[in-house]
Amino acid sequence: MNIITISRQYGSGGREIGEKLANKLQVPFFDKELIIMAAKKSGMSEEVFKSVDERAASSFLYSLWMNGYSYGIPTAANHLPLNDQLFILQTELIKNAAEKGPCVIVGRCADYILRERHDVLHVFLYADESFRAKRAIQEYGEDEKKIHEILIKKDKQRSNYYNFYSDTRWNDPQNYHLCLNTGALGIDNSLEMILKAYKIIQP
Amino acid sequence: MNIITISRQYGSGGREIGEKLANKLQVPFFDKELIIMAAKKSGMSEEVFKSVDERAASSFLYSLWMNGYSYGIPTAANHLPLNDQLFILQTELIKNAAEKGPCVIVGRCADYILRERHDVLHVFLYADESFRAKRAIQEYGEDEKKIHEILIKKDKQRSNYYNFYSDTRWNDPQNYHLCLNTGALGIDNSLEMILKAYKIIQP
Repeated sequence: MNIITISRQYGSGGREIGEKLANKLQVPFFDKELIIMAAKKSGMSEEVFKSVDERAASSFLYSLWMNGYSYGIPTAANHLPLNDQLFILQTELIKNAAEKGPCVIVGRCADYILRERHDVLHVFLYADESFRAKRAIQEYGEDEKKIHEILIKKDKQRSNYYNFYSDTRWNDPQNYHLCLNTGALGIDNSLEMILKAYKIIQP
Repeated sequence: MNIITISRQYGSGGREIGEKLANKLQVPFFDKELIIMAAKKSGMSEEVFKSVDERAASSFLYSLWMNGYSYGIPTAANHLPLNDQLFILQTELIKNAAEKGPCVIVGRCADYILRERHDVLHVFLYADESFRAKRAIQEYGEDEKKIHEILIKKDKQRSNYYNFYSDTRWNDPQNYHLCLNTGALGIDNSLEMILKAYKIIQP
C-alpha cells in the first residue's frame, strides 16, 4: 500500500492519528491543508472555503445557481455553488497528491475519490460520544455545554457531504479495509493496527 | 475482556476465525451450536430450528400468531412464531454462556444481547463479494451459478434478523469495537488483530 485515507467521526482522533502515521511513514499529510491548497489554486480566500469545507451545498445554493447566480471565481466550474467548486478543486488536489506518491489524507471523500486505485488503504475511525466530546473540548476548544449538539451536527455535515458526492454511505464498513473504535482501542493502538494493515495488505 | 462476539457477512470467515480464536484462548465456542442447545432445551427438532435460525419472522407468521395459532411447544413463549421462540431461547443461552465465563459467540445478535456487559469485545467481519463467493462455494458447498443471489439473500436475512430484534443496524460500526475486511487482511491477520484488541481493551 502507498496511500492511507482516513474517514472519521468528529473528535475520534482522525487528524492526530493521520499526522502520526504520516510522521512514522515520512510521507506528506493532507487534512485542512487541502483547503489552503484549494484557496491558492483558485485565488479564493481560505476563510470562504473553510466555511463550506466538507459540507454539501444546500438546495438554496442550487436554486441560486439554477438562476444563473455566479460567484465570479476564475475556474472552469465558476457557476457552481462554492461547496461544489471546493469539492472539484479538492478532488483534483487529492488525485494529484496520490499520483505524486505515498501520503496520508484525512476526510474529504478521499477514499471515494481514489476508489479505483488499488494501492490505497481505507480506514474509518469512530468512538463513543464521551471520548469524542472530551477530545473536541480539549483539542478544538469546543463549548462544553453544547458539545452533544456539536458532535451530532459535525457528523451530520460530514455524512451529508460524503453521501452527496459519493454513491455509498459514509459509515458503511464496506468502503473501508478496517474500522476502529479509537475510544476503546486508544489512539496509539489504533495507529499500530493501521500500520499493520498498511504493511499486510497487498495492492 | 472475557467474551468475544462476532457479527459477520456470509462467507467472510466468521465461523473459521471464531473457532480459531476459541482454540487459541481455550474457551467455549458458540455458533450453530446454539441451535442444537435451543432444540435440546425446548424439546423441538434441530431441523425445525435450523430453518428459522437468524431469520426474522414474516408478517404471515405473526398473522397466524395473532389468530391464536400455536405450535404446541412446551415453553413459556409457546404462542409466538418459531423465529421468536428461537430468539428467546438463544438469548437465554447466550446470557447463560456469558455468565459462565469467557467464550466466543458468532452471530445471533450476541453483541446486542450482551450490550450491557463491559467485558465483551464486539467484532464485525465483512469482505468483498469475490472473496466471500469463493469461500461459500468451497466451505459450504454453495452453488457457483447462484452464488451472487445467495450472498445477497443470506446477508439480507442476517441484517433483517438483527434490525428486527435490536434497535440499531447490523452493519453500523458504532455497535462494534472493530470491523475488519477479512478479504483484504486475510483470515490469520484478522485473527491476530482481534486478539490484539481483546488484550488491549480494558473492561
